[in-house]
Amino acid sequence: MGPVTDVRDAIPAFIPARSAAIDRALRDALDAVDAPANLRDAMRYAATGGKFLRPILATLCCDLVGGALDAGLVAGVAVEFVHAFSLVHDDLPAMDDDTLRRGRPTLHVQAGEAMAVLAGDALLNAAFETLADAPLPAETVVRLTRELSSATRRMIVGQVYDTLGGRPADFSDRQMLDLIHHHKTGALLRASCRMGAIAGGADEASLAAVDRYGTDVGLMFQIVDDLLDVTQTTEHLGKTAGKDSRAGKLTFAGVLGVEASRREVARLRADAAATLRPLGERAAPLEALASYLADRTR
Amino acid sequence: MGPVTDVRDAIPAFIPARSAAIDRALRDALDAVDAPANLRDAMRYAATGGKFLRPILATLCCDLVGGALDAGLVAGVAVEFVHAFSLVHDDLPAMDDDTLRRGRPTLHVQAGEAMAVLAGDALLNAAFETLADAPLPAETVVRLTRELSSATRRMIVGQVYDTLGGRPADFSDRQMLDLIHHHKTGALLRASCRMGAIAGGADEASLAAVDRYGTDVGLMFQIVDDLLDVTQTTEHLGKTAGKDSRAGKLTFAGVLGVEASRREVARLRADAAATLRPLGERAAPLEALASYLADRTR
Repeated sequence: MGPVTDVRDAIPAFIPARSAAIDRALRDALDAVDAPANLRDAMRYAATGGKFLRPILATLCCDLVGGALDAGLVAGVAVEFVHAFSLVHDDLPAMDDDTLRRGRPTLHVQAGEAMAVLAGDALLNAAFETLADAPLPAETVVRLTRELSSATRRMIVGQVYDTLGGRPADFSDRQMLDLIHHHKTGALLRASCRMGAIAGGADEASLAAVDRYGTDVGLMFQIVDDLLDVTQTTEHLGKTAGKDSRAGKLTFAGVLGVEASRREVARLRADAAATLRPLGERAAPLEALASYLADRTR
Repeated sequence: MGPVTDVRDAIPAFIPARSAAIDRALRDALDAVDAPANLRDAMRYAATGGKFLRPILATLCCDLVGGALDAGLVAGVAVEFVHAFSLVHDDLPAMDDDTLRRGRPTLHVQAGEAMAVLAGDALLNAAFETLADAPLPAETVVRLTRELSSATRRMIVGQVYDTLGGRPADFSDRQMLDLIHHHKTGALLRASCRMGAIAGGADEASLAAVDRYGTDVGLMFQIVDDLLDVTQTTEHLGKTAGKDSRAGKLTFAGVLGVEASRREVARLRADAAATLRPLGERAAPLEALASYLADRTR
C-alpha cells in the first residue's frame, strides 16, 4: 500500500522549484568538497532526501528582503549541512539509536558507525567552510558564522538536555518543554530565517519580523511534529512513530494534550501571519509556508 | 615508579609561561560558552591537560610577525578546540576504541559515549564560534575560518583514509603514509602556524616561511610520534604504546625503519631552521621549539 494522500499535504505551488534549486545547490556544494568518494557519498546520503524546510525558510527570507537567490542558497546550504550533521549524530546507537530516517536506513546502518561519526563531523565543518568560501562581503560572512555557530551550540545543548540531563531543577514540564524545544529545534529554524535575511542584506526592521516569524514557525513545527508522532503511523511518516512518547520524553502532545496543542498551533500560525502583514504581498510565500506547516499530516 | 627524566625532554624556557597563558585563554573561552555544567565539564576535560603544541605554534607565529598575544591566542584556542574534538571522536569505541589519553581515561570512558559525541561536536562548533566572536577585522576572521575549516576537512579525510579506506589504489607504502600524514596530522599543525601568522597580520613572505616551517615541523612531529610508539612504554607516554604497529597501520618507523626515520627527522629539523634563518633573532623561539620536538622522548 502506498502512502495515503491528504489534501492538507498539498504543498504551496512555489515549493517544488525552490526545492529543486536547493537540491542542486547542495549537490554542487558537496561535489566541490575535496574528499574521497566514500566520505562524499556518506555526506550526500545524509544531506539529501529531506524536506529542505530550513533552506526553504532561508531562501524565502532572503527573497523577502530583496536578496539574490544565490545569497539565500549559501545560507540555506550551510544550515542544511548542520541539520544533516545533527540527524546523523542523533541517530547513532550511543544516542537515539534509530535505524529509519526519511524512509531509508540511517547512515550508520547504511555505512557503519565510524563513517557516520566522521561524515557528521565533515558536514558540520562543511557548513562553516561553505560560509567562509561564499562570495559575500566579509562582514556578512562573519555575521552568518556567528548566527550559525550560536544556533548549533543551542541545538547541541538541547540534545544534552533531552538525553543526558543537566536541566534546571525547578522547572515545570511546560517550562522544560519550552527550554528543550527552544534549543533543540527552535534555534536552528529561527537561525535559518535570520541567516537568509542577513545574506540578503536585511535592515533591522525586516530582520526583527523574520526573527519573530522564525520563532513562531519553529515552535509550531515542533508541536505539529509531536502531534504527528502520536496520531500517525511509521509508514506514513517515513520515520519511527510513537518513539518519543514510548521513551517517556516530554512532548507537547503529552504535556498540553492533543486539543490544547492544536489550539497552540492555530495561535502561532495567526501570530506568524500578523507579523508578516506589514511587509505586504512580498510575504505571501512565507505565510503560505506557515499554513502548510500547520496543516501537514507528515 | 614515576616518569623517567631525560635531558632531551628539557622544554624551552619560554614554554611554561606560554602554556599557562594558553590554558587560561582556553578556560576563559570555555567559561564563556553558554551551556549546562555537564556539557561544559566534558568540553573542559577534553580541551585541557594536553601539551598545547598547536596553540604554542599559533602564538609563536603570531609573535614572529609582530602580532599581539591576544590575536595569537584566538587562533590558538580555535585550533586547540578542533584538536580536542578530533581526539574525543577518534577515541570512540566505533573508531579507534581507546581508553587512555593524556594519562587519564578517555572522555567516553569518563562521561559516556553520548556525551563524548556531543562534547566533540560542541568543541568543533566552539572553534568557529570563537573565531566569529573574536575582536579582529572581519576579513581576518573569514581568512582564519577558511584556514581552519579547510584543515579540519583534511584531518577528517585523513581519519577516513586511515580507518575506512577510500585511498588511491596505486600508491606505494611511502606515498600512502605521506598522504595520510599530510591530511591527518600535518594539515592542522600547518594551519596552526598559518592562522597565528594571519591573526598577527603577516605579509606574504612571512606567511610563506611560516607555512614551510609548519609543514616541516608537522611531518617531523609525526615521525617522532611513530618512533616513540615503538621505542617507549605506555607508562612513559601516558597513552597506549605500540598500538599502531600492532593494528597493522602504516607508520614511518615501520615503512622507513628506525634509522632512516631518525635521519628524516634530522633533515626536517635542519630545513625548518634554514627556513627561519632570514627572519633573524625573532625566529629563535620557533627554532628552539623545533629542536625540542625533534629530541623529545614522550
